[in-house]
Amino acid sequence: MSETRTFTVQGMTCGHCVTSVTEEVQEISGVEHVDVVLETGAVTVTSSQPLDDTAVRAAVEEAGYRLG
Amino acid sequence: MSETRTFTVQGMTCGHCVTSVTEEVQEISGVEHVDVVLETGAVTVTSSQPLDDTAVRAAVEEAGYRLG
Repeated sequence: MSETRTFTVQGMTCGHCVTSVTEEVQEISGVEHVDVVLETGAVTVTSSQPLDDTAVRAAVEEAGYRLG
Repeated sequence: MSETRTFTVQGMTCGHCVTSVTEEVQEISGVEHVDVVLETGAVTVTSSQPLDDTAVRAAVEEAGYRLG
């Protein structure tokens, strides 16, 4: 069973930012799909196990951005 | 002998954009150094031979941007 949650990321300005965030979040254990909408900062994550908020925050910060 | 010229690139919004433009322009034959200022869009290129404007324009467009 999958779980889908949406986070908001601040500071993304272009497609490269979207790629960076997507790549980092995809590396979190259990993550199956990541969808990022640049205009709104919405990052929707589908995972096979409950997401660890700390891991999501760390991934976003590793990419160079912050959760809003 | 080196020649230094400055171009203006439109549409760069973040450090990833700077990296993309820098990488593409560096590939032009004879280019020795590329300096990009995100805030102004100024791309300063030092080359060992006169730069081909068409090559610079093509490199910038390959990176996904336009000369201003």
